[in-house]
Amino acid sequence: MKIAFDCQGGDHAPQAIVEGALKAKDVLGIEPVFFGDKTLLSSFEGVDEDHIVHCASAIEQEDSPALAIRKKKDSAVVQGLAALKEGLVDGMISAGSTGALLAGGMFIVKRKEGVERAALPVYLEISGQKKLILDVGANMDATPEMLLSFAKMGQSYLQDTEGVEAPTVALLNVGTEEGKGNQQVKAAYELMAQELKHFAGNMEARDVLFNNVNVIVADGFAGNILLKTIEGTVGYIQRTMVSLAKGSEKGGELKMLAKKILSDLDYSRYGGVPLLGLEKPVFKAHGASNAEAILSATEALVRMVGGEENSEGDVR
Amino acid sequence: MKIAFDCQGGDHAPQAIVEGALKAKDVLGIEPVFFGDKTLLSSFEGVDEDHIVHCASAIEQEDSPALAIRKKKDSAVVQGLAALKEGLVDGMISAGSTGALLAGGMFIVKRKEGVERAALPVYLEISGQKKLILDVGANMDATPEMLLSFAKMGQSYLQDTEGVEAPTVALLNVGTEEGKGNQQVKAAYELMAQELKHFAGNMEARDVLFNNVNVIVADGFAGNILLKTIEGTVGYIQRTMVSLAKGSEKGGELKMLAKKILSDLDYSRYGGVPLLGLEKPVFKAHGASNAEAILSATEALVRMVGGEENSEGDVR
Repeated sequence: MKIAFDCQGGDHAPQAIVEGALKAKDVLGIEPVFFGDKTLLSSFEGVDEDHIVHCASAIEQEDSPALAIRKKKDSAVVQGLAALKEGLVDGMISAGSTGALLAGGMFIVKRKEGVERAALPVYLEISGQKKLILDVGANMDATPEMLLSFAKMGQSYLQDTEGVEAPTVALLNVGTEEGKGNQQVKAAYELMAQELKHFAGNMEARDVLFNNVNVIVADGFAGNILLKTIEGTVGYIQRTMVSLAKGSEKGGELKMLAKKILSDLDYSRYGGVPLLGLEKPVFKAHGASNAEAILSATEALVRMVGGEENSEGDVR
Repeated sequence: MKIAFDCQGGDHAPQAIVEGALKAKDVLGIEPVFFGDKTLLSSFEGVDEDHIVHCASAIEQEDSPALAIRKKKDSAVVQGLAALKEGLVDGMISAGSTGALLAGGMFIVKRKEGVERAALPVYLEISGQKKLILDVGANMDATPEMLLSFAKMGQSYLQDTEGVEAPTVALLNVGTEEGKGNQQVKAAYELMAQELKHFAGNMEARDVLFNNVNVIVADGFAGNILLKTIEGTVGYIQRTMVSLAKGSEKGGELKMLAKKILSDLDYSRYGGVPLLGLEKPVFKAHGASNAEAILSATEALVRMVGGEENSEGDVR
């Protein structure tokens, strides 16, 4: 299995990306292809020159995603996705700009048939239960049909790559009763009730971390609010614990405790997120990824490539 | 100052409401008017029969709010709000159905001039800083103009009742840069940048508990997701701490610690929330209110009545 690594994106690129890719080669038996500056990349021990694709320009976080994809044809993102589209590699990993990867995914790799928009999920395991929340930021104004499509993509992903049988879906809403919410989710509820297998109805935001539903669907605006509120609340509580720890004899214990309590909610430990709805597997690693995180991301991508092959294709 | 108390609504009605109202009479010097079952209410020591308004039917949580307001004319909510409209009382408190109180507020008390919709905020003090988040559930599909109006109502409330000078406003969004978000918030941003004093721009959900902005504006859908995600995350962490406490020698300490860490985020301790945008002061106490909570709610309402009188009327 050949995997394209964007060696230009991420806080610790290219070092962390290259080291992670080489670890993945050892551990997972994949064949890494390195996209980036040839001179720089060939200076790393263990990088085969034949597996470097030289990319002269790089897409930066500040670049407008759509514009960057059109203008920077010789960037790692564009080159890597083009190689993926042409079948020269089986999957692609980037720790760079999420927007650019999404835009590139849509323009270059293209969407699966019947998929109107690609979606960005977040993956969590809470008390051992696998959960996918999507969309968390790719689609700001989503139609009810798109929400239905996100639900199916989420189910499909959990089933094919994480082995979840009959994944259940809930619609993020302000109340559990039918008829709650804004026009968009009211219409989405009706669609889902008709067309979705294992639909569990509406879910309030307060139940997301407790409820045993697998896929939680929202548009990119509401999903982003949900995700970043979890992040902010965890951060606030962590800060409070650390500040209490300072004045306490049991400072060390308190910090350990904070870490233990909050680890389930730390979605960064899953390496990143898949881009859902594209023709081929693309994985977004966290910007702050170190080599270990790149390895985790590659593991998830390898499952994703395998899942695509095993998919029955019954879900859009 | 005469205050109408809905003695039918709330988990501990009528007892907690009556006791809270009598405390408020002692502590704050207000004159309580009790709306509810006359026979029942007159059995409480300290309740003057002349201050009871008999209400034969009660609005239940399960009732459709708009329908209940139209059909149950002899309920405490309808009678209390009618007395408020007519100027027989100066403010109204209810711990019953939020929906019915809102619907009644709009139909009976009416909105202030220029206000298209009443809004439901939540009030928090984080590290001593006063914050109002609105709307958290009254308006599911809000126009950009409504969001601007919520911002002004929030500023006005903090200024007039909480003494916050020059309250700043942020718009809840998925990123801080101008141009982020869905169509609704993009348009709202432009409006606010033009028409709002002390506009601090967009705010991401992860910064809500950290940032020192006073008013955070969202539509009722996104605001509800924000609020209930804080609640759910706090609940999750609390549960984890309590469960860790069980297996620990330091169980008691851990529980104390959890309480201390989470108390800033417990918005129930503020007694309830004002309904913003109405002609006259209406306060929604928490459903679970005990007599102390009703006293807190009355204190807030008294500040609100005073604030209305002092308001310069320069903010819608």
